Amino acid sequence: MAKNIQSLERAAAMLRLLAGGERRLGLSDIASSLGLAKGTAHGILRTLQLEGFVEQDATSGRYQLGAELLRLGNSYLDVHELRARALVWTDDLARSSGESVHLGVLHQHGVLIVHHVFRPDDSRQVLEVGAMQPLHSTALGKVLSAYDPVAHSEVMEAERRSFTGRTVTAADEFEAMLDLIRAQGWAADAEETWEGVAAVAAPVHDRRRMPVGAVAVTGAVERVAPGGVLRPELIAAVRDCARAVSRDLGAGRF
Amino acid sequence: MAKNIQSLERAAAMLRLLAGGERRLGLSDIASSLGLAKGTAHGILRTLQLEGFVEQDATSGRYQLGAELLRLGNSYLDVHELRARALVWTDDLARSSGESVHLGVLHQHGVLIVHHVFRPDDSRQVLEVGAMQPLHSTALGKVLSAYDPVAHSEVMEAERRSFTGRTVTAADEFEAMLDLIRAQGWAADAEETWEGVAAVAAPVHDRRRMPVGAVAVTGAVERVAPGGVLRPELIAAVRDCARAVSRDLGAGRF
Repeated sequence: MAKNIQSLERAAAMLRLLAGGERRLGLSDIASSLGLAKGTAHGILRTLQLEGFVEQDATSGRYQLGAELLRLGNSYLDVHELRARALVWTDDLARSSGESVHLGVLHQHGVLIVHHVFRPDDSRQVLEVGAMQPLHSTALGKVLSAYDPVAHSEVMEAERRSFTGRTVTAADEFEAMLDLIRAQGWAADAEETWEGVAAVAAPVHDRRRMPVGAVAVTGAVERVAPGGVLRPELIAAVRDCARAVSRDLGAGRF
Repeated sequence: MAKNIQSLERAAAMLRLLAGGERRLGLSDIASSLGLAKGTAHGILRTLQLEGFVEQDATSGRYQLGAELLRLGNSYLDVHELRARALVWTDDLARSSGESVHLGVLHQHGVLIVHHVFRPDDSRQVLEVGAMQPLHSTALGKVLSAYDPVAHSEVMEAERRSFTGRTVTAADEFEAMLDLIRAQGWAADAEETWEGVAAVAAPVHDRRRMPVGAVAVTGAVERVAPGGVLRPELIAAVRDCARAVSRDLGAGRF
């Protein structure tokens, strides 16, 4: 039993390795990165390849992530109750606000985007479903940190990197911000993660009143917070949306 | 070594099981579906859960796919050269055609959608990235079957299910259709998969002239094939797009 589990853990570590940094790695790089003998690493990689979790480039012989992960990731979304309940509400929020809308959940040490509605204009936009956002600087991450105890431990233990001159990194300052977020019921990100970008987020609760995710409106700081002040109707719209999704998940009215 | 590989194969089989059909399964269902002892199944599931590949519902105790698959699936897309090269061209194709555009690759026994550009209007649309399409009835699948020998074996060996009254299922008829596709350089799907929906697709080749994917325009049959005839400018636009992506991948002009 212990052996089986070890091979699974090693396979997962390989996939994580291929998902970050270089992304196309040779057998030697993979084996040495994980402290494995080449033969051991090759056995795992061969099985992962057979199952479609990794692919090997025919010319270079390097390994990269495989198509089966995309198929399974899509199946994960299909069964995601929060996302299913939020589809219509987030669509309406994007239309009414004229900005892009994200739905995020806590995953590992950050926010995983599980739904993204494009800003309803003709501009070229990149889908961010499956992308990760930092917990300490984004509106979604701050909401999760304020309401979810697991997210709170994650964010307090992690190194809170400074992305812009406005990122809050000091522990006491960050805790004070979370207190404010809990008091007001929503969080903002005013150029704390990306220069020129502001966001407002509110928490989504399930039938057990647990914080299961957050919904955010994100856009150019000039539109979202003209003159440095967040548009109040945007805050109201995000909170309305989060409440509507919570109600659809069975949370009582509050 | 053999033992390690077996636990990986079993883990992959569990993920496939959770990706199809029921999608939320208890330990007993999973163990019996895969012919495993409950203790063995539980050891694998526990490790998969620890790595984020499966999640367990707190109330029912049932297992479902986990968030790490979405994150890894997104990383797979990030490193996908064909998709990266096709982004701008498929965007242009959606704008010029006014219809939705899909980019697909062969995966297992079907077409995996790796990119999807929405129809450029205000309608509500569902993103199909990560979804699978059948090889024998869709425009994308027929192109791959015509040009990729592996896809050809897959489609000829599989059961070719009839989705509508127009689906071609007989082997000889299907082979004749593939000959025509190779002769003309493109494939169509006129309500052969979905009632009311038509599509045109063309193959994308890489620098070694290998068929690595296909690009398609899909829309209401009334717009794509008015009066039962495919719009010639749509065929030309799809083929132009596929050639442009092929050139960007290093394929010679042809």
